[in-house]
Amino acid sequence: MAETAKIEGPLGIIAGQGPLPCALAEAAQARGLPLHIVAIQGEAREDIERFPHTWIKWGEIGKMLHALDQNGCGDLVIIGAVNRPDISKVKLDAGAIKALPFILSLGRGGDDHVLSRVVRFFEQKGYRVHGAGDVVPELLAGEGAMTAKTPSAEDRSDIALAFRVVETLGKLDIGQAAVVAGGHVLAVEAAEGTDAMLVRCAELRASGRNTRRIPSGVLVKAPKPGQEERIDLPTIGAETVRKSAAAGLSGIAVAAGRVLIADRQATITAADELGLFLMGERLTRAETA
Amino acid sequence: MAETAKIEGPLGIIAGQGPLPCALAEAAQARGLPLHIVAIQGEAREDIERFPHTWIKWGEIGKMLHALDQNGCGDLVIIGAVNRPDISKVKLDAGAIKALPFILSLGRGGDDHVLSRVVRFFEQKGYRVHGAGDVVPELLAGEGAMTAKTPSAEDRSDIALAFRVVETLGKLDIGQAAVVAGGHVLAVEAAEGTDAMLVRCAELRASGRNTRRIPSGVLVKAPKPGQEERIDLPTIGAETVRKSAAAGLSGIAVAAGRVLIADRQATITAADELGLFLMGERLTRAETA
Repeated sequence: MAETAKIEGPLGIIAGQGPLPCALAEAAQARGLPLHIVAIQGEAREDIERFPHTWIKWGEIGKMLHALDQNGCGDLVIIGAVNRPDISKVKLDAGAIKALPFILSLGRGGDDHVLSRVVRFFEQKGYRVHGAGDVVPELLAGEGAMTAKTPSAEDRSDIALAFRVVETLGKLDIGQAAVVAGGHVLAVEAAEGTDAMLVRCAELRASGRNTRRIPSGVLVKAPKPGQEERIDLPTIGAETVRKSAAAGLSGIAVAAGRVLIADRQATITAADELGLFLMGERLTRAETA
Repeated sequence: MAETAKIEGPLGIIAGQGPLPCALAEAAQARGLPLHIVAIQGEAREDIERFPHTWIKWGEIGKMLHALDQNGCGDLVIIGAVNRPDISKVKLDAGAIKALPFILSLGRGGDDHVLSRVVRFFEQKGYRVHGAGDVVPELLAGEGAMTAKTPSAEDRSDIALAFRVVETLGKLDIGQAAVVAGGHVLAVEAAEGTDAMLVRCAELRASGRNTRRIPSGVLVKAPKPGQEERIDLPTIGAETVRKSAAAGLSGIAVAAGRVLIADRQATITAADELGLFLMGERLTRAETA
């Protein structure tokens, strides 16, 4: 794991969906870091209003940069998923019109392409962009089992295959997660996201297309090789655990130090209550090659 | 494309789901081939009863072999998808009990593993197992556009990426299909099958997670590298076209000579009516490597 990043002045947080922006803000405040959140309307949750914040709409790039500068935020963390906006419906402010070549470059290509450009956009303006885990490492999955249950021999074999699948998918910038049961790849994540993939696995059970005993099978999440880990780390949380349980899975394995856990205590408690294992695996070169 | 297989005596057809078993039987009869269908209950459609047939349940391997032998079928085609049965609920007849080591070997591993074993099981008993396309090549997709519409430059770029994705997936025995739009991999097929994958792509539109203009994006289907092409060729049909249209896709490309079309005329008519292209691409070594 990298050293904790050195933050000079208040931390700027650009907030998308889910519980992570607040989890990051809480952890940062617990470390005594001042901060300001720029929250994207329609994406970020309203409870970011507990923290110093500015709401912006898609297209209000000028307003965003102004809010960061007014609050002295030279260090940024960009966190939380966002939907790709329909560019034809976005109203651009003056700052966005200046950034038009950048915005138009986002319309094509896979996630990696888009996220790398977003990071470069901020860096070219002089901001330092950090991964959430570099600022508050306590958000990252550690190594080993976090739950009472640990993987069986079959689970371990499924975990190894699933890490290979995720690695291979990642090379094509497809997704960060897969479900394997009994040596059979049940589902692979692309644009739909992990939750939708897990719902599909539950449907495979219900439809009789997966008749293995319950629980069996594992969810694995890991970053894509070479992906922009500062702003697109895979994430799990209590909802991931509940949907994995609904799909009849035995447990969840993630890349240690490279996957965020949205609410660690709630996530581990949910896994223990539902009888799933949850573990971090340190990926060696052999496993990621 | 291989030469048409030489069939000695009546053709045995082991029939699973969908319209392909009947399409095969019709095409074989049009060629003057006598035949007998062994249809799996709960899988094959009732309209196979138009042809000489025997119904079997999962586990009635003795009854199946008896029906084939009684009808003089030394040449077999196995066609139509099947759900993996819950082995604990299958009643085994005497022939199945003799084949128990074979049956138990099917419980683990990916599709390729299972299908290769099924072929070997019949071959060890002296049957000749053929691909449907080797017996009636008119069921296979040809090369070039089959529709009035042809792919745009962007479609061609999406097709090329999608073939690379399917090739990569195939190496891990995952699936035979992917959807790519604007250089972005929207969905990847695993155990859920192509129809469910296309429904997911329609949902990505509805949920605002894919805001590209309509139509855009392509469905690509191709066999896995090294897969058992005799009994698991990818298939498309009119329903594939309708679901691709519902997902807002621009068209469908398949590996020429290596993908079955369930009902060619209805499939092409549906594509023309819905404004999609449908084409076969001869895969070169460079594209499949």
